[in-house]
Amino acid sequence: MPRDDPREMARVEAFSDGVFAIAITLLALDLKVPELPAQAGAAALAGALAREWPSYVAFLISFVSVLVMWVNHHGLFTRVRRPDPWFLFANGALLMLVTVVPFSTRLLATWLPRPGAAAACAEYGAHYFFINVAYNLLWLSVASRRRLLKPDVDADEAREIGRRLRLGVPVYFGATLAAFVQPWLSVALCASLWLFWARMPYRILPAA
Amino acid sequence: MPRDDPREMARVEAFSDGVFAIAITLLALDLKVPELPAQAGAAALAGALAREWPSYVAFLISFVSVLVMWVNHHGLFTRVRRPDPWFLFANGALLMLVTVVPFSTRLLATWLPRPGAAAACAEYGAHYFFINVAYNLLWLSVASRRRLLKPDVDADEAREIGRRLRLGVPVYFGATLAAFVQPWLSVALCASLWLFWARMPYRILPAA
Amino acid sequence: MPRDDPREMARVEAFSDGVFAIAITLLALDLKVPELPAQAGAAALAGALAREWPSYVAFLISFVSVLVMWVNHHGLFTRVRRPDPWFLFANGALLMLVTVVPFSTRLLATWLPRPGAAAACAEYGAHYFFINVAYNLLWLSVASRRRLLKPDVDADEAREIGRRLRLGVPVYFGATLAAFVQPWLSVALCASLWLFWARMPYRILPAA
Amino acid sequence: MPRDDPREMARVEAFSDGVFAIAITLLALDLKVPELPAQAGAAALAGALAREWPSYVAFLISFVSVLVMWVNHHGLFTRVRRPDPWFLFANGALLMLVTVVPFSTRLLATWLPRPGAAAACAEYGAHYFFINVAYNLLWLSVASRRRLLKPDVDADEAREIGRRLRLGVPVYFGATLAAFVQPWLSVALCASLWLFWARMPYRILPAA
Repeated sequence: MPRDDPREMARVEAFSDGVFAIAITLLALDLKVPELPAQAGAAALAGALAREWPSYVAFLISFVSVLVMWVNHHGLFTRVRRPDPWFLFANGALLMLVTVVPFSTRLLATWLPRPGAAAACAEYGAHYFFINVAYNLLWLSVASRRRLLKPDVDADEAREIGRRLRLGVPVYFGATLAAFVQPWLSVALCASLWLFWARMPYRILPAA
Repeated sequence: MPRDDPREMARVEAFSDGVFAIAITLLALDLKVPELPAQAGAAALAGALAREWPSYVAFLISFVSVLVMWVNHHGLFTRVRRPDPWFLFANGALLMLVTVVPFSTRLLATWLPRPGAAAACAEYGAHYFFINVAYNLLWLSVASRRRLLKPDVDADEAREIGRRLRLGVPVYFGATLAAFVQPWLSVALCASLWLFWARMPYRILPAA
Repeated sequence: MPRDDPREMARVEAFSDGVFAIAITLLALDLKVPELPAQAGAAALAGALAREWPSYVAFLISFVSVLVMWVNHHGLFTRVRRPDPWFLFANGALLMLVTVVPFSTRLLATWLPRPGAAAACAEYGAHYFFINVAYNLLWLSVASRRRLLKPDVDADEAREIGRRLRLGVPVYFGATLAAFVQPWLSVALCASLWLFWARMPYRILPAA
Repeated sequence: MPRDDPREMARVEAFSDGVFAIAITLLALDLKVPELPAQAGAAALAGALAREWPSYVAFLISFVSVLVMWVNHHGLFTRVRRPDPWFLFANGALLMLVTVVPFSTRLLATWLPRPGAAAACAEYGAHYFFINVAYNLLWLSVASRRRLLKPDVDADEAREIGRRLRLGVPVYFGATLAAFVQPWLSVALCASLWLFWARMPYRILPAA
């Protein structure tokens, strides 16, 4: 039976952290300086900046989402004995989806105030749906018959983590469908799930 | 009572350092090659480069600001026993503002030599105002009733750090307002505050 | 005779990991928000997103390729006692090629559905050919007369690693030529080689 | 007298390495996919790619330059006991110049084949001149009266490092001036100095 491998876990985590840090920083690249005639005055510039509110909303939601994902990613990693191919595959899929967050954010920022908002919001919701699926696969690779779970993680905690992650599947699916009824509702649902994920049992946050 | 947790502090700091390093490197992406007809000569190119001085000024001020912020961020972290939710929340807000520095710099570089400069300079000042607020919140989460403060930090030092950070609030507020009177004054104020922050009591810099 | 130097190896590996993490995250920068008139509806936006499938295919293939390269890079590094100039030169050449992957991916995404696909696919294949050559050089710098090989790596394993890496040379050469016959075949060949590289003897993946 | 501080040195080095890794990876962002009509064939695309040779030359020279700078930066850091304000100031100036390398590379790639090449090549040479000045300041902050030098660095080695770095000042100054006579000569001079810097006495490269 393979032994624990904290050094390999540390390296996979460092690489993942790098990807999270870069993706979260790239989000701000899509805050654009307004294109105005060079002779525009301060009031015109202030107005143009204010009209870019959809960029700021999309940036804020995505930044906090990636931050909470990073916290949960770390919380999950602290429960794992060693990586195996399934774990690395699920982690790779999750990282791929994390790097795409700036794209979905850009799409949302551009289309939120336009007639085509439903498609952009559905894509945004679907993106988080797939991220949730990747977290579920990652956790299954760890906790299914306790394959890679550290011995000191108790069964109740493991069950509770699995139960919450599974709950995300129908909720994000619903958020995606909601976009076709009311685009804003879909984004609000995705954003409000922060509060839920920020309180996972494997959180790194000791009580205040 | 929760124990100290140097390993968690190290990980939060490594992630934060990654964000600082990426944000500071992205600043240079906004130094643009001048658009000139392909047959332009060396003198025309040199002239076009020289006319981009506002980009260079904005880049220089922002680079040094982020560097000093990074030094202070580290100095502050060396005083902390362990992270808690309030600390992580304040740190996340600070990192978000750090990733936006290239945007404010781009705005300043584009508008500094134009009639709309006041709005760009006010945005720049306001950005640093909010960064200062985030530092104050971060420090409060640590030092308020010594919640997360290491036992070896003496009370005088902690008080002095808090006093200086609070001083930043009215000063940056003033710098933001100053933009409406004289845009340049506002930027000069923000830039000259480096000297002040570079000499915080928690600096990592031993005496020369 | 120079001693082992695990600290130097760790630093070269950390720098390489940084380059891998940044290159893999930059891939997603080339997923573009479709340019449509602002009044376009949700169906038009969804259609425009669907027509960007070549970007998604190119992104997916490149992301998985760089991920597998990273895994193999680490597997190879775990066999090395210390760096020397030849090793650093080959590693630098490999990193340079890794940073260029987003360029080849962009080229492929733009030209895959156009008449000029053959040139883009040949460039993509040739890029992977040179990456394979760089891996061969890196391994030669380590294993040729066991120059930098750790004593606990047995001769059979070392031979097998070398044999597989050499196999890549004619295969990628063939994939490059195949582009002129059938562009798709070339890309499919490059993509299917993941499975082969993911099962290198120096994989970090213990059996499931 | 302040003690050694290997932990602070490690953190300054990790931050610096992050900046180096990001700057070197961003170089490839400026390799542009040729803009051609969508119906262009493979031969037209191949021709357009070939005509971008100045981008490839500029990329290659800059990549190898930053890589050699990184190796030397590390070699220099291994000689330092602890950071102090002068050392951090010089290191910050160096990092700022490193983040600007992609800009100078972009400028060179665009203007190398045009009549205005002299200005672009002079800027490129001047950039390396300032990088060399920053390395000189960094080394002075360490070695002047052995302020921060580790006790085990012998006086001859320290003198030799200083002598070589000083030699760079007139050579890069000459390379900058040479641009006005013959732009290519200037770039060739900058590029050929790799060989010189790659053989600094503080190289991390043990003999082959």
